[in-house]
Amino acid sequence: MTTEHLGASRRLGSGIARSEPDRITVRDLDLATELMGIANLGDMAFLELLGRMPSGDESIVFNAMLVALVEHGVTPNTLAARLTYLGAPESLQGAVAAGIVGLGSVFVGTIEGAARMLQEAMAEASDGDLESLADRIVAGHRTRGELVPGLGHPLHKPADPRTARLFELAQAHDLSGQYVELMNRIRREAERQSGRVLPINVTGAVGALAGELGMPWQIARGLGLIARTVGIVAHISEEMTQPMAGEVWRYAEGLTVDDAR
Amino acid sequence: MTTEHLGASRRLGSGIARSEPDRITVRDLDLATELMGIANLGDMAFLELLGRMPSGDESIVFNAMLVALVEHGVTPNTLAARLTYLGAPESLQGAVAAGIVGLGSVFVGTIEGAARMLQEAMAEASDGDLESLADRIVAGHRTRGELVPGLGHPLHKPADPRTARLFELAQAHDLSGQYVELMNRIRREAERQSGRVLPINVTGAVGALAGELGMPWQIARGLGLIARTVGIVAHISEEMTQPMAGEVWRYAEGLTVDDAR
Amino acid sequence: MTTEHLGASRRLGSGIARSEPDRITVRDLDLATELMGIANLGDMAFLELLGRMPSGDESIVFNAMLVALVEHGVTPNTLAARLTYLGAPESLQGAVAAGIVGLGSVFVGTIEGAARMLQEAMAEASDGDLESLADRIVAGHRTRGELVPGLGHPLHKPADPRTARLFELAQAHDLSGQYVELMNRIRREAERQSGRVLPINVTGAVGALAGELGMPWQIARGLGLIARTVGIVAHISEEMTQPMAGEVWRYAEGLTVDDAR
Amino acid sequence: MTTEHLGASRRLGSGIARSEPDRITVRDLDLATELMGIANLGDMAFLELLGRMPSGDESIVFNAMLVALVEHGVTPNTLAARLTYLGAPESLQGAVAAGIVGLGSVFVGTIEGAARMLQEAMAEASDGDLESLADRIVAGHRTRGELVPGLGHPLHKPADPRTARLFELAQAHDLSGQYVELMNRIRREAERQSGRVLPINVTGAVGALAGELGMPWQIARGLGLIARTVGIVAHISEEMTQPMAGEVWRYAEGLTVDDAR
Repeated sequence: MTTEHLGASRRLGSGIARSEPDRITVRDLDLATELMGIANLGDMAFLELLGRMPSGDESIVFNAMLVALVEHGVTPNTLAARLTYLGAPESLQGAVAAGIVGLGSVFVGTIEGAARMLQEAMAEASDGDLESLADRIVAGHRTRGELVPGLGHPLHKPADPRTARLFELAQAHDLSGQYVELMNRIRREAERQSGRVLPINVTGAVGALAGELGMPWQIARGLGLIARTVGIVAHISEEMTQPMAGEVWRYAEGLTVDDAR
Repeated sequence: MTTEHLGASRRLGSGIARSEPDRITVRDLDLATELMGIANLGDMAFLELLGRMPSGDESIVFNAMLVALVEHGVTPNTLAARLTYLGAPESLQGAVAAGIVGLGSVFVGTIEGAARMLQEAMAEASDGDLESLADRIVAGHRTRGELVPGLGHPLHKPADPRTARLFELAQAHDLSGQYVELMNRIRREAERQSGRVLPINVTGAVGALAGELGMPWQIARGLGLIARTVGIVAHISEEMTQPMAGEVWRYAEGLTVDDAR
Repeated sequence: MTTEHLGASRRLGSGIARSEPDRITVRDLDLATELMGIANLGDMAFLELLGRMPSGDESIVFNAMLVALVEHGVTPNTLAARLTYLGAPESLQGAVAAGIVGLGSVFVGTIEGAARMLQEAMAEASDGDLESLADRIVAGHRTRGELVPGLGHPLHKPADPRTARLFELAQAHDLSGQYVELMNRIRREAERQSGRVLPINVTGAVGALAGELGMPWQIARGLGLIARTVGIVAHISEEMTQPMAGEVWRYAEGLTVDDAR
Repeated sequence: MTTEHLGASRRLGSGIARSEPDRITVRDLDLATELMGIANLGDMAFLELLGRMPSGDESIVFNAMLVALVEHGVTPNTLAARLTYLGAPESLQGAVAAGIVGLGSVFVGTIEGAARMLQEAMAEASDGDLESLADRIVAGHRTRGELVPGLGHPLHKPADPRTARLFELAQAHDLSGQYVELMNRIRREAERQSGRVLPINVTGAVGALAGELGMPWQIARGLGLIARTVGIVAHISEEMTQPMAGEVWRYAEGLTVDDAR
């Protein structure tokens, strides 16, 4: 067993950071002298996820992607966080975790869906004919009865203001390439085939830009989780001084009693 | 019931953000035109939590506080996230939540303890004699048999390199005031009374700077939760290509079998 | 390092269960032949937590304790579970986890508080004079401005029907001893000193009976977590066919819009 | 808005339980007098999920299904719970939630997969020819390159002792019908087509019996979540007196340091 475990040990271990008494390095950069005071939180996320510091252009676009995702007002998951805080105010981390665990397939998870759709299509496309690629992708979704991830929004119609701004920033900073182009074509194709107004929503825009930055689709949802954690903490903070959870609870309970008559 | 609910409704609602079809505002700033491309993720967290944009000085110090907290290598909570991913790889958000829920009293929670200690002391102190305040705080903890939050580190001795850098940045950007001063005095007093080396660790430094920035201690732990979410996503990302969780599991299981002989 | 880890390995491992290809044992009982079809789920929980099968009397009282805790209608934590399911319907386990993480100090956690109060008091009491012990406990809480855990209920007044039934069952099955007696005296003393009606609620009753069964207070909250998981799954199941979360969300959002006028 | 909300209110509310000051009913049964002391925890789960009390036969089989799922020794999710407890010992509910959130597609989630496969097949099968149905199901999975849920086990070969016992109990209590029959035929067909030994594991057996009991596949995973919560609490309880998490952490960290040389 000893040998086996030692053998196994060679495969183990994290390559992200290293600590010594007077020095911490993250991705081989000195945390105190090369990151703190120099990198902002978005840059640090870029370094953690992609293994290198962003360029100036990348920093602006990547921070904008995260900033766009931070806040969405009263949502099911921030309500879940507030209700959890009501029952366990001693554990801020529990309320935040409750707010994160609901960021699944319906809301933030569509970042992953959009990033995956684009990255898998680009990997398979040999000829670079984006128009026919967009056509096939949309037709495929329609045949399977699936929504195209990253398209459509109940409120932000005919356009999501965050998408326009993200694509404008990407353009200005030389980060608008094939993924953005394909996403735009998919949108036009989807509107043509469905006859409906289908704006690229913020998760579709972030999913496309993840491709431009070389971020694998498997972790694209993580951008939403990082950004939304900021928003969740802010909503719990607001709940501390302007509570809403108790009233929401009484509302749901009251209706129950009402129904029972 | 109608009346009651309408009455109640006046107290409800979040003041953080507002959405219209073509416009989202956060703390009364236009998300697309006044924040995206301008604010970085740390600035956005400052805005969310404190209700206003940081000054240039505040932006640098606040981002440095968050950057300092992002990454701590292999920790119990990142291991929990990796093990969760092993069982539920389809739900990235679940693995992240598992990594957050362990950020309690032992690790990141000490930010809250340090911020609270300092803010409650400053609120009670009428005369501003920080030296006798530090003396009373340390003596109080010793009498109650409690550790002083924010002091001591198993590895980073005699000084935590992040603390030195944070306090240096605070000094350079005019954000080093009474809270930092009191924390430094508490440290000296604790070392004197205990005869031990007790560096201010990164959670003590962040706790002190939370006071300088006017951030209530009740949400100071949230800074650690926001920053660590970045690190948790990075560790899960690493787990996808360099898995460790299965080996950790087999190790624990193997020893169990071994013990059973 | 090898030696150190082998040395360490002697301390590791779980003693709860053991698996062989054709046999699983839990606490040294054969799962297939000695537990399945014989023990009910409550008995199994008793075995897991206390290391032995319950007697017939213990089985009835312990199952009743758990049954009493399963269901509380629409509560903040079941609402959190429903809202989480709305966003991540593909991950039932995430919605259940969100429902559990809110069972903190305000609701189910009071089981722990009551069990701890009673067990610490009984451990310190040398003379067995329960009357003066109850007096001191209540006075201590009043001096510290704390509520006595396990007393009081917003709806179930002047008595909690579950408490009466639990204490009746404990009496009938020879499991009503010093802990129940002390809890009753604490209740009377609290009512006398406060002049208010303070029924022993279900968490106070379960906390007292945990003492009778020899269950350490440190895991008493676990009884609530086990029982409430049943209720949480049921509420998510109801949400699948009679959804409430979307309406609760729109209500909270609608009021937000309303306030904004 | 008033009208809309009142209209909406008619759809809201939970039908599971109702509370009055001196009476709580669950599924129209009086909790104190008709359930506590009479129903065991498994019966209560049956009532919560299926809306009626189980018969004597159903009670034995359903409790056995849950008992079979409670305990699996050291698993990734119990390790995650132990590691979470290490960081947040003040929040038992957080450690339990961390243990639950990892019960996804790889482990307990296969109950859902098996139940769904059987229930969808039975719903489509008009002629009741189970043999050709099993053939088509297995061939379909092989064509799509998917594993058949509920088959195969790394340790319990050639048979899972829990499955044999569950099917024996179902037979003895008149609850072995078409779902069990189909699962058995799928297993034989899968072994024939693959040439491998593929026992029905405990999640496949529970998935089949969920069909026999009329439980929709959408909540079948919930049985695993309920049962495993019992096991998770027991493992955290063991961690309190025989800790393993710190050593597991040091092992993973130590190897990291080792690798770095």
